[in-house]
Amino acid sequence: MKFAIVNGPNLNLLGKREPGVYGNQSFESYLNNLRKTYPGHKIIYFQSNVEGELINYLHEVGFDVDGIVINPGGYSHTSVSIADAIAAIDAPVVEVHISNIYARENYRHQSLTGAKAKAVISGAGMHGYKLALQHLIEST
Amino acid sequence: MKFAIVNGPNLNLLGKREPGVYGNQSFESYLNNLRKTYPGHKIIYFQSNVEGELINYLHEVGFDVDGIVINPGGYSHTSVSIADAIAAIDAPVVEVHISNIYARENYRHQSLTGAKAKAVISGAGMHGYKLALQHLIEST
Amino acid sequence: MKFAIVNGPNLNLLGKREPGVYGNQSFESYLNNLRKTYPGHKIIYFQSNVEGELINYLHEVGFDVDGIVINPGGYSHTSVSIADAIAAIDAPVVEVHISNIYARENYRHQSLTGAKAKAVISGAGMHGYKLALQHLIEST
Amino acid sequence: MKFAIVNGPNLNLLGKREPGVYGNQSFESYLNNLRKTYPGHKIIYFQSNVEGELINYLHEVGFDVDGIVINPGGYSHTSVSIADAIAAIDAPVVEVHISNIYARENYRHQSLTGAKAKAVISGAGMHGYKLALQHLIEST
Amino acid sequence: MKFAIVNGPNLNLLGKREPGVYGNQSFESYLNNLRKTYPGHKIIYFQSNVEGELINYLHEVGFDVDGIVINPGGYSHTSVSIADAIAAIDAPVVEVHISNIYARENYRHQSLTGAKAKAVISGAGMHGYKLALQHLIEST
Amino acid sequence: MKFAIVNGPNLNLLGKREPGVYGNQSFESYLNNLRKTYPGHKIIYFQSNVEGELINYLHEVGFDVDGIVINPGGYSHTSVSIADAIAAIDAPVVEVHISNIYARENYRHQSLTGAKAKAVISGAGMHGYKLALQHLIEST
Amino acid sequence: MKFAIVNGPNLNLLGKREPGVYGNQSFESYLNNLRKTYPGHKIIYFQSNVEGELINYLHEVGFDVDGIVINPGGYSHTSVSIADAIAAIDAPVVEVHISNIYARENYRHQSLTGAKAKAVISGAGMHGYKLALQHLIEST
Amino acid sequence: MKFAIVNGPNLNLLGKREPGVYGNQSFESYLNNLRKTYPGHKIIYFQSNVEGELINYLHEVGFDVDGIVINPGGYSHTSVSIADAIAAIDAPVVEVHISNIYARENYRHQSLTGAKAKAVISGAGMHGYKLALQHLIEST
Amino acid sequence: MKFAIVNGPNLNLLGKREPGVYGNQSFESYLNNLRKTYPGHKIIYFQSNVEGELINYLHEVGFDVDGIVINPGGYSHTSVSIADAIAAIDAPVVEVHISNIYARENYRHQSLTGAKAKAVISGAGMHGYKLALQHLIEST
Amino acid sequence: MKFAIVNGPNLNLLGKREPGVYGNQSFESYLNNLRKTYPGHKIIYFQSNVEGELINYLHEVGFDVDGIVINPGGYSHTSVSIADAIAAIDAPVVEVHISNIYARENYRHQSLTGAKAKAVISGAGMHGYKLALQHLIEST
Amino acid sequence: MKFAIVNGPNLNLLGKREPGVYGNQSFESYLNNLRKTYPGHKIIYFQSNVEGELINYLHEVGFDVDGIVINPGGYSHTSVSIADAIAAIDAPVVEVHISNIYARENYRHQSLTGAKAKAVISGAGMHGYKLALQHLIEST
Amino acid sequence: MKFAIVNGPNLNLLGKREPGVYGNQSFESYLNNLRKTYPGHKIIYFQSNVEGELINYLHEVGFDVDGIVINPGGYSHTSVSIADAIAAIDAPVVEVHISNIYARENYRHQSLTGAKAKAVISGAGMHGYKLALQHLIEST
Repeated sequence: MKFAIVNGPNLNLLGKREPGVYGNQSFESYLNNLRKTYPGHKIIYFQSNVEGELINYLHEVGFDVDGIVINPGGYSHTSVSIADAIAAIDAPVVEVHISNIYARENYRHQSLTGAKAKAVISGAGMHGYKLALQHLIEST
Repeated sequence: MKFAIVNGPNLNLLGKREPGVYGNQSFESYLNNLRKTYPGHKIIYFQSNVEGELINYLHEVGFDVDGIVINPGGYSHTSVSIADAIAAIDAPVVEVHISNIYARENYRHQSLTGAKAKAVISGAGMHGYKLALQHLIEST
Repeated sequence: MKFAIVNGPNLNLLGKREPGVYGNQSFESYLNNLRKTYPGHKIIYFQSNVEGELINYLHEVGFDVDGIVINPGGYSHTSVSIADAIAAIDAPVVEVHISNIYARENYRHQSLTGAKAKAVISGAGMHGYKLALQHLIEST
Repeated sequence: MKFAIVNGPNLNLLGKREPGVYGNQSFESYLNNLRKTYPGHKIIYFQSNVEGELINYLHEVGFDVDGIVINPGGYSHTSVSIADAIAAIDAPVVEVHISNIYARENYRHQSLTGAKAKAVISGAGMHGYKLALQHLIEST
Repeated sequence: MKFAIVNGPNLNLLGKREPGVYGNQSFESYLNNLRKTYPGHKIIYFQSNVEGELINYLHEVGFDVDGIVINPGGYSHTSVSIADAIAAIDAPVVEVHISNIYARENYRHQSLTGAKAKAVISGAGMHGYKLALQHLIEST
Repeated sequence: MKFAIVNGPNLNLLGKREPGVYGNQSFESYLNNLRKTYPGHKIIYFQSNVEGELINYLHEVGFDVDGIVINPGGYSHTSVSIADAIAAIDAPVVEVHISNIYARENYRHQSLTGAKAKAVISGAGMHGYKLALQHLIEST
Repeated sequence: MKFAIVNGPNLNLLGKREPGVYGNQSFESYLNNLRKTYPGHKIIYFQSNVEGELINYLHEVGFDVDGIVINPGGYSHTSVSIADAIAAIDAPVVEVHISNIYARENYRHQSLTGAKAKAVISGAGMHGYKLALQHLIEST
Repeated sequence: MKFAIVNGPNLNLLGKREPGVYGNQSFESYLNNLRKTYPGHKIIYFQSNVEGELINYLHEVGFDVDGIVINPGGYSHTSVSIADAIAAIDAPVVEVHISNIYARENYRHQSLTGAKAKAVISGAGMHGYKLALQHLIEST
Repeated sequence: MKFAIVNGPNLNLLGKREPGVYGNQSFESYLNNLRKTYPGHKIIYFQSNVEGELINYLHEVGFDVDGIVINPGGYSHTSVSIADAIAAIDAPVVEVHISNIYARENYRHQSLTGAKAKAVISGAGMHGYKLALQHLIEST
Repeated sequence: MKFAIVNGPNLNLLGKREPGVYGNQSFESYLNNLRKTYPGHKIIYFQSNVEGELINYLHEVGFDVDGIVINPGGYSHTSVSIADAIAAIDAPVVEVHISNIYARENYRHQSLTGAKAKAVISGAGMHGYKLALQHLIEST
Repeated sequence: MKFAIVNGPNLNLLGKREPGVYGNQSFESYLNNLRKTYPGHKIIYFQSNVEGELINYLHEVGFDVDGIVINPGGYSHTSVSIADAIAAIDAPVVEVHISNIYARENYRHQSLTGAKAKAVISGAGMHGYKLALQHLIEST
Repeated sequence: MKFAIVNGPNLNLLGKREPGVYGNQSFESYLNNLRKTYPGHKIIYFQSNVEGELINYLHEVGFDVDGIVINPGGYSHTSVSIADAIAAIDAPVVEVHISNIYARENYRHQSLTGAKAKAVISGAGMHGYKLALQHLIEST
């Protein structure tokens, strides 16, 4: 099967930004391991800090891949437009948050995008991406 | 006269996305008909999923065209910046929503951008674009 | 086809009340022009300042005409009962507001009645009635 | 390693209650499969409809097992006391919700207990329990 | 020392847009004067209407310059993602608003980005940029 | 004993309006049966869509009858004035709602008029009127 | 000079309703005394329980009398339409409340109609009408 | 037919607790009379102060009896879990409150459990149980 | 009889501050006229910008004079302590606001002190003090 | 005299749970000292994590002891039912919180149960129990 | 040891003001008894109705005494500045309220000053001062 | 030119109070340096913990100096009266906060006084006073 992993704003800084909170592994190195764990599946990857580019990408792959793992970062809490995009496409979407959004600032408790996703995994660290992928594989 | 129609995020999927809600006509084919209905006017068109590109476009045409019909999609409810752009330019702006935003989720009831527009037409389907254009023509 | 135009409280003062805001044309004179623009259609008209009389009238014509254009004035924001009436009748209803309600006091941003209407046109001035009528004609 | 799975109110009805929403497999049969999937680990199980019994159980196993998977059901949104218990014990806790709580009634969007858990998995169906367990195993 | 000035949406219209509110000097001409006032410092400049491009730029210069003066415009009030970027980078950030945001619409009173900045200067007009720069120079 | 049944806005459409929700029996035919069930009591009836006419009627009968059964319809949620009238008269009042107002839109959860009534019966369908009447008879 | 006193819902019950709160003098007898106190002025009087009739009356006298004393009763807190009428007419309006609305239920603290009146007198009992009249006489 | 009456917390104190508010009859003596009034029906009874025991009982009888009359007491306003149980079982449920919850503290105006019940009767005193039972009998 | 007039913060600037809003007469000159109008009564006067001094003064005269006219200025909306003082003393208090507080910023709509006063007169300009005094004289 | 001390959820973990916050003394050892301090009084003790068992216990001792010291833990903020029980019994109740609830999360600022207690002591640590007991002894 | 007792606004009226609520003992006579109860400690006393004088006094004694008992009266709910002062000084502060603030108006439920105090005692009457003092003595 | 610097409550403790947050320099020593930096200007200084004294001082100098730098401390968030005073005087006012109020407790995010000031500088530490002064000098 074919899956897309989509990372939103500031996630390109993983491994570099506040390592105490987010760990010191870059997402690219994590992704390499993930691909090795699932050799039978094709995993494509996209990151952007631009809200509209994330929407463009969802449109582009959303009628094609078997599932999408998305971490919309800060846009989770404010973007009606990404939420609309998730609702508009065919592929099932699982939302991932590295930290537990329930345990952070109030404005991070709500996820507009998560409300349109199939499932939401929050607080499992980088491991959350693997869980999300596995859910797409095992539940499809 | 010269008018611009500006469509925001996810509206490029018209005809493809949830046809039960939004109909199955693409915006391009609708636009063709609209241009035929108003042969004496020039209608230019722009769509983007990127908030900032919409602002760029408003700046570009906003001191030039005789009126703008805009459907800011999900940005209507969150974008102070597009609202600022509408207020900053010279051309009168009419906002259009295909579905009736009063009858949807609570967070769609408020329109930050609509508050800066001259008029708002909501729930008239694709036909709303025609009404908006006609309003600009007949009220200018 | 047969349409009803229904005006709510204070709209009998049009042309007389705050002309800077609402223009100085009375609704009756506007209505005459409107009837001339659509000679093939019958347009009946009703105005009342009484919430319940508006409900009575909606009941009376709501199973008979081909469409209703309503401007519920101040009741738009408070009347659960007119909203119930709009939902209860058969004729499609388009709500009109002369001024842009998004750009006025906070308590005018919400429209309980608009949530039950098919479409809402706000801020197009008197011209909004024409747009509403045209929408009913062209979308029926 | 040793893990506890803890189910809160109404989850004893799984397989019997609203099968359209929750599926028609009982939790016991699901649990059997789960134990077979992880033969090297001991999985103990507890269900109660009583808020205080859930607290009692968390106290009882919370200083002993290597991790807890909890679905506090309706108590997630209202129980300061279970949240306090999760914070008080030593074992890491992963919260699971069968349905996507972001997509349901407003009062289900907030999770008091989830704010004290390590991670929250919502909307992955029964499969969420497996993901939670796997997270505890692989991240410990 | 080296500083970056970053302007958000609609600020490219300075001098052109609502001169009664924002004055009639373009930012470029103001910047020239500013550079002359501080000949010993290097001041680089970036403007974008695109939220994600602002984030990209913050990432790009944020681990390099000695300080950043930012006016996020309308994004100040809605962008969790720019706020995250400000928190993630090393350079100290001072936020500037040309008008006094406390004296404008309610939704401009809150600044998500300002909460992550070191200092916020609001209402000092174009002069605010100079004050911000001076603060970075004198407090570093 | 002598009782009044008072129906508010849109309840004249019973049997005609949304029969899936409200059943297809008119209130008049229901009332006939009710009178037959309680041959020893006099039951007078009034319906109006006009808020002030309902107040007038409450004043008229409220110092005379032994009890009033009222369904204020949409006015339940907005009318301080009907609530004042219920509080001002002597007869005990029981409020009835055909549908369960707790299970409908948020703005129907509150009943200003119910707060001044002796009892409120909601969700029992047309049968609610009988229960209300019986309560007045058996508790007086 | 010529003045109108306008009483809203339930005020026809004065002297009869909750005498502990509202005193036991009917408004008519109070009005007689008031007219005797101001023999040089013409005082006309209107009472209605119907919101729209109050609006009609305001329209009727509002371009003719030298001032209006209004007690909108429960409509004060809910009627955007009476507020609009007060704003639309020429005569200055003073609003009177017999009891102190700040000391009653929360929903009585706000006065939509009072916001459009020239002055509001609350809590002075029946005497408030005299004060209001006197204000209109002495300040005109 | 077979019915269950379920009383929640503090209702075991009826007749003993605040007799001015709740009367001085114990529920048991009331129940005896009720059984005599309906000799052809079997009425079983359960009271508990424990939220989870109420859920247990609803599960136990909810697929067996022909209807349930429940007074969840203070849990009405806070228990998502009892509300879930009411939604999960087959038997129709009528909720009863002895006092009029609309006329008490604000936090008693909302009923989470009532929103999942078929009907709610509030303020009819002990008599409310009879009305509820009668509704189940006559509407089944 | 003996009365005290008490003015709160900024009212010492009357006649000097924003004359367009507050007129150009100083309070002292107004007070002279007032004393001449009521030669048979003793009117003492106190002004302070200090919340606690206003409380001190209320304690001092509040068990002695026959009535107090107070304009607490900005403290009306925030001072629980002045409200407590008004409630604690024996003399009846009438609150006056020169401008109509219902028509100003939201935070001026509520009056904590007015809730403890006997009556509130708002929007009658300086004349409000006379009305307040007259009310104390004629209603005592 | 005879007193009951009642501890709610998680308080059985005292001395074991987060000693930095709650100290490292178990409640039992503290209770021993307390009994020694007041040899002339009988102090009975109850702890439960179950909301309903706390209610049961309050019913059981509440008509018998001379006073109750209660720490309802997390139920303070959510339990309408325990609040109802405190209001229903005869014995005076003093509520104790070990930490200062005003200085913790927002949802701990409100105490539903405290509103029905005679007094509330918060933030005095374990010592609060002694103060509460002393208050019951010295004020009875 | 040396302690300060600080009373805020209106507490100078104790014994005189609303004796039904606050008792008829003056604070001075209570203080005499308190000093006799603790002969080994020096207790100084200060009362003011002026917010700033309370702050001044806290500054003056706050780096000198061994503890402060404060009843900020109405300022508890509104004074960010007294709260700041409590946080700024060295001496531990215990806040006392004579009545139970949880059982009064909503705006008395929150205590800004209490949030910065070590402990809060509310509802224990005058006796609360003794408990507070004793807490400072026994916990220091 | 002549300027006044006005410091509100607790700012007399600068250098002494929480040095980690506010630094360990007293304001007087800072002021000396400031005066040396601007030898051509006269800078007068006032500090008070009393809200009304701050208002008095603003009245006193507000029609005389060329500008005012104010740090209203905790009164910024609650004082309608200081805000009124700032609006009433002639001199331009710049508000300073030593710490970044956007990054602190929610109740510090709003500034009532800042809304009436010309500009607000927040988070620049003591240096903010210099920036404010400089703004007054360079923008006048």
